[in-house]
Amino acid sequence: MKKNNASNREFMRAVVFDGRVQFSQRYAIPEVPRDWARIRVHLAGICGTDMEILKGYQQFKGVLGHEFVGVVDQCDCADLLGQRVVGEINVSCGQCEWCKRGLKRHCARREVLGIRHLNGCMADYCVLPTSNLVIVPAAMTHEVALLIEPLSAACEILDQVQLAGTERAVVLGDGPLGILCAWVLSTVLSDVTLAGRHPYKMEKAKWRTIKMVQGAHRGLYGADIVVEATGSTKGLSEAMALCRPRGIIVLKSTVSTGERMNLSSVVVNEQTIVGSRCGAFEAGFKSLRTYPDMPLQRLITAFYPIEHASEAFDRAAGSDVLKIALNL
Amino acid sequence: MKKNNASNREFMRAVVFDGRVQFSQRYAIPEVPRDWARIRVHLAGICGTDMEILKGYQQFKGVLGHEFVGVVDQCDCADLLGQRVVGEINVSCGQCEWCKRGLKRHCARREVLGIRHLNGCMADYCVLPTSNLVIVPAAMTHEVALLIEPLSAACEILDQVQLAGTERAVVLGDGPLGILCAWVLSTVLSDVTLAGRHPYKMEKAKWRTIKMVQGAHRGLYGADIVVEATGSTKGLSEAMALCRPRGIIVLKSTVSTGERMNLSSVVVNEQTIVGSRCGAFEAGFKSLRTYPDMPLQRLITAFYPIEHASEAFDRAAGSDVLKIALNL
Repeated sequence: MKKNNASNREFMRAVVFDGRVQFSQRYAIPEVPRDWARIRVHLAGICGTDMEILKGYQQFKGVLGHEFVGVVDQCDCADLLGQRVVGEINVSCGQCEWCKRGLKRHCARREVLGIRHLNGCMADYCVLPTSNLVIVPAAMTHEVALLIEPLSAACEILDQVQLAGTERAVVLGDGPLGILCAWVLSTVLSDVTLAGRHPYKMEKAKWRTIKMVQGAHRGLYGADIVVEATGSTKGLSEAMALCRPRGIIVLKSTVSTGERMNLSSVVVNEQTIVGSRCGAFEAGFKSLRTYPDMPLQRLITAFYPIEHASEAFDRAAGSDVLKIALNL
Repeated sequence: MKKNNASNREFMRAVVFDGRVQFSQRYAIPEVPRDWARIRVHLAGICGTDMEILKGYQQFKGVLGHEFVGVVDQCDCADLLGQRVVGEINVSCGQCEWCKRGLKRHCARREVLGIRHLNGCMADYCVLPTSNLVIVPAAMTHEVALLIEPLSAACEILDQVQLAGTERAVVLGDGPLGILCAWVLSTVLSDVTLAGRHPYKMEKAKWRTIKMVQGAHRGLYGADIVVEATGSTKGLSEAMALCRPRGIIVLKSTVSTGERMNLSSVVVNEQTIVGSRCGAFEAGFKSLRTYPDMPLQRLITAFYPIEHASEAFDRAAGSDVLKIALNL
């Protein structure tokens, strides 16, 4: 933390997007609103959504990042001070119709860490409401804690789709989110196939009884549930082609650009498309308590010092890579 | 029915699509397979799907039409002979995985009357399996019977979506299917709005407590369920914008061409898109028994003799028009 003598403000290191990714040595440390906490970030993850923001998604400008683990270093709540935490990324108003209906993650006026109206966690410090923070169990490594956010997003599927247990599932996409979706589904379904394109990633994805298939080939046709986590605009068409009549397609990819598509076959085959985003962290933690052998740490390919963020983003855009983490 | 002395085959009048709509005086009368019936068609309807076929949908070529009422004039089943009937349009194999799972309307090898591999009903005669036919109650008019097929398609929504009764629904599209969807929803929900663009059609759509709004304006935002029945590729984007977070969009339109779209907001808002096609005729009949005042006959704008089919299709493509029927 450096002091700027002229203005008496303090500065921090941060990865800032303003049309391009830049590392800043002197970004203003955020103020801490009442009932919020300031977190000294230790580790931040680069996610597919960050890569889409670089292409214009959500028109976000500011400090990037929404996956982190860190230590609370400033807040009014004594129970949190000094604790190692992760944080739910949606900051809701508590007043709007959706908040009142219990849909806080869909708050109409929400800010989202590093995605919407709120600076993110790829910096020495970020701020979040204390109610968003969850203390990380002492035995959990930094690396596993970093992956609680995407793991919870994968667990969201189980909250949205009622599964009987006999369904045949196909997950499209062998990025971290696709792999996590396959892992979570494999805890409730015996027949889960991950359709990927990268031998490196599929090797890392092996867990329990999950089957691996290279490419979304037609032999997978007739799946009861298809999770689209390719991060590509073409993924939905593949999912539509593989899903059975009256089956379910879970749509996970958020993309910056549109694609020409015809959803008539969704109508003809009476498929259901379920949009699925973030999950409650409690679901991620619970999944890990129940399946402590879930090999989350495998998903981190490399660590970069924050000063090398630009290089880290280049690496994250490559093909033989899963999660890239920034050290702070 | 005319005899062709040269081949001894008999001919009939028919509306044939082979790249353009043509009226034929001498189309071969269909053979009647075992367990099928031949129906002397009295009235056939022009549907939005027919208009899409004209643009290339399903690459269908042959006799058009899937909405009809007629009299069985040839079949092995004595109970059906001479009876006035309507007919379910999907002809299933009974052998494939989907048939065995009870999803006969989604049979992998299905033929669909006037839509897929099976000549339709805009002709003196059409043929269907006897198991597809439903006898029309004596008191029901031809006009109402003709609308059982689209009414059943509207009723399909209630089979697919579990409604609590307190939902606020918006139906986009004031064509016959949109109006029927609004009517069916209004039998289970008190808050239904039909968003249309044509005063003529919206006047016809008035029934029960249905509210009418011209254009899909933002005041409708936050609907729990949005039915997209515009028949247009742009309808889904409107539905996405009006539906609340975690709400349901029922997709009814089948269109021949694609549209550039971005479904990221479906993910972000965790909306569910339910593709919805044909319904079981029993649902349509039951709805009419329960709500005998449902003013189906209002939806027929004009009758044309089959010889004037080309003119009838032109009229059906116009704006101040609901259902166009062909007399045979």
